[in-house]
Amino acid sequence: MSDLPTLLAECIAVVDETMDMLLSRTKDTEMRLFEAMRYSYTTGGKRLRPFLVTHSSALFSVDKNCAARVAAAVEFMHTYSLIHDDLPAMDNADTRRGKPSCHRQFDEATAILAGDALQALAFEVLSAPETHVDPAVRIELVRKLSQAVGVNGMCGGQMIDLLSERIDELNISKITRLQYLKTSKMFTFSSVAGSIMGKGSYRSYMALHDFAQEFGLAFQITDDLLDVEADQKKLCNAIGQDAVDGKATFVSVLGVERTRAHVSLLVDNAISALEVFDELANPLREAARYFTNCTN
Amino acid sequence: MSDLPTLLAECIAVVDETMDMLLSRTKDTEMRLFEAMRYSYTTGGKRLRPFLVTHSSALFSVDKNCAARVAAAVEFMHTYSLIHDDLPAMDNADTRRGKPSCHRQFDEATAILAGDALQALAFEVLSAPETHVDPAVRIELVRKLSQAVGVNGMCGGQMIDLLSERIDELNISKITRLQYLKTSKMFTFSSVAGSIMGKGSYRSYMALHDFAQEFGLAFQITDDLLDVEADQKKLCNAIGQDAVDGKATFVSVLGVERTRAHVSLLVDNAISALEVFDELANPLREAARYFTNCTN
Repeated sequence: MSDLPTLLAECIAVVDETMDMLLSRTKDTEMRLFEAMRYSYTTGGKRLRPFLVTHSSALFSVDKNCAARVAAAVEFMHTYSLIHDDLPAMDNADTRRGKPSCHRQFDEATAILAGDALQALAFEVLSAPETHVDPAVRIELVRKLSQAVGVNGMCGGQMIDLLSERIDELNISKITRLQYLKTSKMFTFSSVAGSIMGKGSYRSYMALHDFAQEFGLAFQITDDLLDVEADQKKLCNAIGQDAVDGKATFVSVLGVERTRAHVSLLVDNAISALEVFDELANPLREAARYFTNCTN
Repeated sequence: MSDLPTLLAECIAVVDETMDMLLSRTKDTEMRLFEAMRYSYTTGGKRLRPFLVTHSSALFSVDKNCAARVAAAVEFMHTYSLIHDDLPAMDNADTRRGKPSCHRQFDEATAILAGDALQALAFEVLSAPETHVDPAVRIELVRKLSQAVGVNGMCGGQMIDLLSERIDELNISKITRLQYLKTSKMFTFSSVAGSIMGKGSYRSYMALHDFAQEFGLAFQITDDLLDVEADQKKLCNAIGQDAVDGKATFVSVLGVERTRAHVSLLVDNAISALEVFDELANPLREAARYFTNCTN
């Protein structure tokens, strides 16, 4: 079996090529919209959600072209959420992955539309016959993705996140729910996608669901930890950007050491959930350790 | 047969009740998001797109509950587009149907998220088994709606509209394409929805498609005419708000009289397209005349 960095690089190459193929070109007036959409997904990124689609699909011997299309749809959806999150009214981020954010490179109106069109494109890709021969499989993918995005998913999580500065007491239970909605729901969709496409058993579906739910949470908390550590390195503040913004995170509530222990526990749980699978699930196991700095 | 005002009122009652049923409630932190979504679709509106879904479905004896769900999905989608169009970075509208626009009643971030979540909800409703027993029908609805919304639909049209102030020459051909994308595509989806659900013939599908394409264009141009006439009544300016904004419209290019003649021609074409249907299509015919002021 290939090592993780090779598999990650392979996944990036395949999903990026697929996204380019799926975003049809135009030379007409609305070209600016295509450019903003393309700009936003070509700014790099780990393509972790596509990786989950790809390697959950491999467990069920799903056709690689079908898996690549679903992986691209997930990344289109993720890209929309990043564009809108960066807007001045939201996180007001001038840069994303070291490049100007979409609204800085283009303008706010174009960024709003690019996000909207990327969400629609994700559903368009999932619904096309090329994605899966069985319409019942395609509609199940659409249904699960729409649930992962809407009020009970990413959008709901982002709403809580925005409100969290005003909430007096954001305890561990509430922060867990926030991150579960904002991050884990998309991880979960990406991981069960393989089981849906491959018509896996209920047991295998739930194994991937539970894996992704815990991994998503661990991934998000690791992000918070990295924020704090970056700030500590800068020697300018020891509590992290989100704490400065007034946002409660696991780190601000539990402290660094207990948070690290919590991440480690979540990753153990995530990997335990995969025990129904053989070594074909190793890329998922290794990704969970790698992206949460739990490799040793 | 009931008269048009009665049918319109019936449609509003059914679709509003269905939307309330489909937008699940919560008492959790993200309640603000639900409130913004509900606020935005309860500000009134003609529910013209749901009317097209309802009465195209009646042509094929589609189950009324199924039609009501698709009608609600279309109105959720339409509501998302209105919320985002009103944003400061877009049309910067403080009011919508006489009430504060979503971002004025709540805030910009909430309005962006409410639009995003309404788009996802539209697809979630279409993909649910309750909407149609046949997954192939549901996925076709999702596919057509996603195409009507994305870069080659509403979002593309809105992008051209925003850019139109900068375009030196916006001729009738380009304005037609803009309105076709921005308005007709959603009209078209709403009208072919009945044929898709009722598994109508290709001929009936195309009849509804052609009807809606012409009606959508006529409807949008009527809106431009009303803008001009409202301004003329105010005696403060004779060329209309969009002309003031630098946007080219049919009225600014053709003048009022020739524009009226053009609308009349489009409505005739729309109604001609329906000749394959009997008097069951009368509500569609009457709506096309009524909403374009071509009743006499």
